[in-house]
Amino acid sequence: MRNTFGNQFTITTFGESHGKGLGVIIDGCPAGIKIDEDFIRLELQRRKPGQSKITTQRKEEDEFEILSGVFEGQSTGTPIAMVIYNTDQKSKDYSHIAEKFRPSHADYTYHEKFGVRDYRGGGRSSARETAARVAAGAVAKLLLANYGVEINAYVSQAGAVRLEKPYQELDFSQTESNIVRCPDADTADKMIQLIDQTRKEKDTIGGVVSCVAKGVPVGLGEPVFDRLHAVLGHAMLSINAVKGFEFGSGFEGVTMKGSEHNDAFYKEGDRVRTRTNHSGGIQGGISNGEDIYFKVAFKPVATIMQDQESVDTKGEAATVSGKGRHDPCVVPRAVPIVEAMCALVLADHLLLNRSSKI
Amino acid sequence: MRNTFGNQFTITTFGESHGKGLGVIIDGCPAGIKIDEDFIRLELQRRKPGQSKITTQRKEEDEFEILSGVFEGQSTGTPIAMVIYNTDQKSKDYSHIAEKFRPSHADYTYHEKFGVRDYRGGGRSSARETAARVAAGAVAKLLLANYGVEINAYVSQAGAVRLEKPYQELDFSQTESNIVRCPDADTADKMIQLIDQTRKEKDTIGGVVSCVAKGVPVGLGEPVFDRLHAVLGHAMLSINAVKGFEFGSGFEGVTMKGSEHNDAFYKEGDRVRTRTNHSGGIQGGISNGEDIYFKVAFKPVATIMQDQESVDTKGEAATVSGKGRHDPCVVPRAVPIVEAMCALVLADHLLLNRSSKI
Amino acid sequence: MRNTFGNQFTITTFGESHGKGLGVIIDGCPAGIKIDEDFIRLELQRRKPGQSKITTQRKEEDEFEILSGVFEGQSTGTPIAMVIYNTDQKSKDYSHIAEKFRPSHADYTYHEKFGVRDYRGGGRSSARETAARVAAGAVAKLLLANYGVEINAYVSQAGAVRLEKPYQELDFSQTESNIVRCPDADTADKMIQLIDQTRKEKDTIGGVVSCVAKGVPVGLGEPVFDRLHAVLGHAMLSINAVKGFEFGSGFEGVTMKGSEHNDAFYKEGDRVRTRTNHSGGIQGGISNGEDIYFKVAFKPVATIMQDQESVDTKGEAATVSGKGRHDPCVVPRAVPIVEAMCALVLADHLLLNRSSKI
Amino acid sequence: MRNTFGNQFTITTFGESHGKGLGVIIDGCPAGIKIDEDFIRLELQRRKPGQSKITTQRKEEDEFEILSGVFEGQSTGTPIAMVIYNTDQKSKDYSHIAEKFRPSHADYTYHEKFGVRDYRGGGRSSARETAARVAAGAVAKLLLANYGVEINAYVSQAGAVRLEKPYQELDFSQTESNIVRCPDADTADKMIQLIDQTRKEKDTIGGVVSCVAKGVPVGLGEPVFDRLHAVLGHAMLSINAVKGFEFGSGFEGVTMKGSEHNDAFYKEGDRVRTRTNHSGGIQGGISNGEDIYFKVAFKPVATIMQDQESVDTKGEAATVSGKGRHDPCVVPRAVPIVEAMCALVLADHLLLNRSSKI
Repeated sequence: MRNTFGNQFTITTFGESHGKGLGVIIDGCPAGIKIDEDFIRLELQRRKPGQSKITTQRKEEDEFEILSGVFEGQSTGTPIAMVIYNTDQKSKDYSHIAEKFRPSHADYTYHEKFGVRDYRGGGRSSARETAARVAAGAVAKLLLANYGVEINAYVSQAGAVRLEKPYQELDFSQTESNIVRCPDADTADKMIQLIDQTRKEKDTIGGVVSCVAKGVPVGLGEPVFDRLHAVLGHAMLSINAVKGFEFGSGFEGVTMKGSEHNDAFYKEGDRVRTRTNHSGGIQGGISNGEDIYFKVAFKPVATIMQDQESVDTKGEAATVSGKGRHDPCVVPRAVPIVEAMCALVLADHLLLNRSSKI
Repeated sequence: MRNTFGNQFTITTFGESHGKGLGVIIDGCPAGIKIDEDFIRLELQRRKPGQSKITTQRKEEDEFEILSGVFEGQSTGTPIAMVIYNTDQKSKDYSHIAEKFRPSHADYTYHEKFGVRDYRGGGRSSARETAARVAAGAVAKLLLANYGVEINAYVSQAGAVRLEKPYQELDFSQTESNIVRCPDADTADKMIQLIDQTRKEKDTIGGVVSCVAKGVPVGLGEPVFDRLHAVLGHAMLSINAVKGFEFGSGFEGVTMKGSEHNDAFYKEGDRVRTRTNHSGGIQGGISNGEDIYFKVAFKPVATIMQDQESVDTKGEAATVSGKGRHDPCVVPRAVPIVEAMCALVLADHLLLNRSSKI
Repeated sequence: MRNTFGNQFTITTFGESHGKGLGVIIDGCPAGIKIDEDFIRLELQRRKPGQSKITTQRKEEDEFEILSGVFEGQSTGTPIAMVIYNTDQKSKDYSHIAEKFRPSHADYTYHEKFGVRDYRGGGRSSARETAARVAAGAVAKLLLANYGVEINAYVSQAGAVRLEKPYQELDFSQTESNIVRCPDADTADKMIQLIDQTRKEKDTIGGVVSCVAKGVPVGLGEPVFDRLHAVLGHAMLSINAVKGFEFGSGFEGVTMKGSEHNDAFYKEGDRVRTRTNHSGGIQGGISNGEDIYFKVAFKPVATIMQDQESVDTKGEAATVSGKGRHDPCVVPRAVPIVEAMCALVLADHLLLNRSSKI
Repeated sequence: MRNTFGNQFTITTFGESHGKGLGVIIDGCPAGIKIDEDFIRLELQRRKPGQSKITTQRKEEDEFEILSGVFEGQSTGTPIAMVIYNTDQKSKDYSHIAEKFRPSHADYTYHEKFGVRDYRGGGRSSARETAARVAAGAVAKLLLANYGVEINAYVSQAGAVRLEKPYQELDFSQTESNIVRCPDADTADKMIQLIDQTRKEKDTIGGVVSCVAKGVPVGLGEPVFDRLHAVLGHAMLSINAVKGFEFGSGFEGVTMKGSEHNDAFYKEGDRVRTRTNHSGGIQGGISNGEDIYFKVAFKPVATIMQDQESVDTKGEAATVSGKGRHDPCVVPRAVPIVEAMCALVLADHLLLNRSSKI
């Protein structure tokens, strides 16, 4: 299953940027979950292009339709199919993409792998595919809400502008209050300035999305290959433009000593807790009840409004020129995608864990 | 399948640190591969404890046996089962582990998840499980050798000692020439000194393993969830003590501009190549024929020779004391594990890619 | 994956009888296959209700739409999504189903399993779901045509009327020439009479569909659990109303002696062939190049135009009365479904077999 | 996963008839099940060759060893690996198999599929592989016992000798009282005579194994492709020499009318029950709480003590002569295998069903 993610709570996505539509099948969603369509719509809007001056001005309608699996507002235990139709399929001029390989895009590798490709708007490699994930992630969030799990992602770095505060000092209710989705107002301003300036330079920058999951029950994750953080890493690295993933102490943990890094256990009421949380809420690959937190690194967007050296499908030297409207920095719109993939992983492992004991 | 990794070329591992044995089933290995048992043995020796003064002095015999799937020196297309028996199962005193949760180990989470656990030597959560992966990875390497793929991992950081040279300037034939597995002699010396000193302090440090795969054919990786780097990330994050993964430009790519980061295409003879390789050999999730390279961050080993605050299985406060012989730094022994997991991913995707076109 | 079938060439179906639509995602279809939409439409028409006086007079429009995975008439290697919208969703009176369990239907078991169910027209348990399989099977047939594989199913029994001729004596071009899809005209007439009479009696009968696959390459099927006939059996038994499956000599083979049953090998030109074919084209679970043939038993349709004893969702005794328009015998319409599932199995194993050897 | 069966409670078998050993990994067995090794041993003895005059006189030692996943007599939730070593690996003369294709065996198809094969004793295609399934099935039975599920298989036909009594009239405690495993003493005698006579004629016969599962909870099975009977059929058809599967009314149901075949619902105390059980305990693919029953057809054993026409690996005409000691009828030894596969399916679906509802 090349386009499926998950074991119990699975999603299979389909669709290209400029075909008739794209969507997702959720298979394995338990019956009896209230499916709030307004919530799904809201999540999709957070991902949508054209939200603000720092994101692409391209308009996409992400109106979705549930085709199956929901009856009288509840999941029925059968596959939930959701489709987002591509309303804007007019035959633009794609000759600049059809016969040339855009640098650091998927054009060349798709061409070689499949021999044929839908080049319109990037086809299957378009980040538009993530709309399907956001829709499915919204359903996963609705499932998780029954168990008290809450997921908050935010932009912690844009280019060189970095939010230095630890997540514990942030007020997540502020994340949506600015267009860059950074819960710290001052840092947000700096990020917005940098992104705006980068756009004027017809260039792009990368960034980091941080994510915190609270209320995750103890016991999620499988001991060996499907350690919870390994699956989270897989999920995050599968998002377009992601180059790195770290959880808990991450790459910085490398320079710590064991005696500093280890999280001492203590008892708080009935609950076993840890005094520090360098483990990022996951020990031995299994959630320990502390906050799960991780970071996801995004490269600068590959589409730039400049001329670039390349080759064409015949192997001749060619120049690729920037065209159309694109994001100078993708991370603000990546926030709901990171949350969605996190929710999908947790929902899946919540169900998997039902069979850990007799 | 909780203990399985891969789609076509799959491994399922089993076994605990101090049970009768551990091992692996490779399912999906094509028929007709020459199985060189000496090579498998050599790979296992690279992972083995007790190799040098900077690794644990604990002796483990990793003698393996192939039970099935190989006939007259060749793979037959049926499952290859390999077992490594635990020769040293004597009933030590495990009371310090049996009833207390070691900080930053899997003791507490296993206890909660399963209700019962084999506490001897960490049971299933022991890094000894990776011996099975190394054996399977050796078979994957034998398969890949038929296609000219070569994988080299090495220690690029131990604690704060960091190898600054890019991999292109390194001579991988030197990796095995020193006990820390860093191909640069000067840096290796500094690493060894740091590790040795840390051991004397009864403490531990982390490190980074870098890995380079050369000769990977164009076209490996699946477009959406199983982007080649996402699967590599999953594989690496599933190794004990790993906290982060990045490929190509990684977390540093965040601060680059698109115009700097993009890898321009050009033609070299018949081959389409890129002038830079910030993509780390993978574009749109699919290998582009350039070198694949990535980094894996390891936390400091959790077992330290010091007293630590904890709780016991009854929920009472308890002190965990260091005992036995353990690695002050795990990264030298992690080098063959990183290579093995990389080989398993590439072998799997090589086979998967056979069905990309009619 | 509860609603997925296959390993490499996989289908995931979704949708209920009276929801917005139903459909299928084909994942793993290689790039480069010509997708003939007219052929898919034709296959769907063969399954459609209301084709003749002996099938249900209920009208369903099975107009389908390809949403993704096909570009300029060719498969692109990305998921092919096909949707069949339910045009006739008017809110009929379903109270006779909503609160009563129809005998030998899925009403009671769905109710217990999920706690909630879409009762309209049987919901997910409706045979309308097989339209999605037929659409996907048509794509599998287009793939198989590239390898010279041809699949022919036909009605070999309706109630007690049985076609006694072996398949070798039949002219498959005649299967579609009559409304019961039996390639022997005389037997077809008897079947039609019986079905027509049964309809008048407000009752139903069962039947048998036989299937022959010619031109299947040697080597398809996996040695142990996924023996080719085991997967074919799984596929056939997953069709609504199926009660039995046999291949080659089947249940009759039980009374034969080994010396009669064994298929002697001989050489015909360059090809190894067998003098008889009690093996049904499959030996040791792997195709041997001879014709694959098997039979599928269908029970009488559960919906009858008579009053039946039952209970309701509150556990009270209740009478279920026949209503609406239903097939007196399902087997003529099952012919394209059996062919579709056969094609899906063979396409999947054709791709799987690409990795049997190095 | 070519050698894996199941979704949640999975088995992966490995091993050849005359390699070092064969075995099974159970992955997904919940923690906390008491593992009774004596019971596993007993089940293996029921399958073992050399039990009586009507089975092969070949001696095989099926002594098994649990390598992992069990601690202090309980499953730990980690993979349970069980190995059965092949003690009798002496280098016999296999030239009669090595270079000739035995009729109706897997020799030719393996040769073509893999290019190489372990011909000793049939290699992977040997029925000895089923010992691994019986061991795993015993663990599944131990799991199911916690839920009150009981499985009884028996021989209902040997060649033309058929047990006419319905299963409700049988006393399953008598199944093991005779060497043919038919719970009806008179029929058993006739079967034994027939088998003994067949052996003297150096020939073989087939048979039918019937199976009844009592106490299966309502709700097992998945709606579409993994209907409970479809998975049972897959499981049974994956056993060596099986040619057919039917459940409930089976092939005979074809000639019944809907009004006869439908199982009327009624209330018995708190329980919804059916007056008849033509459904075989499964409706809409989901268990309804009534007895599950099905039949499995076995062809006559392919190895006969007579000369047979064949070809050799070079494509020359050749004569295959009978050699060694083999079963004249395999069905008595198939009884525990059928039970094991049934237990594996039910255990898997019991766990799967834990996620049907929120």
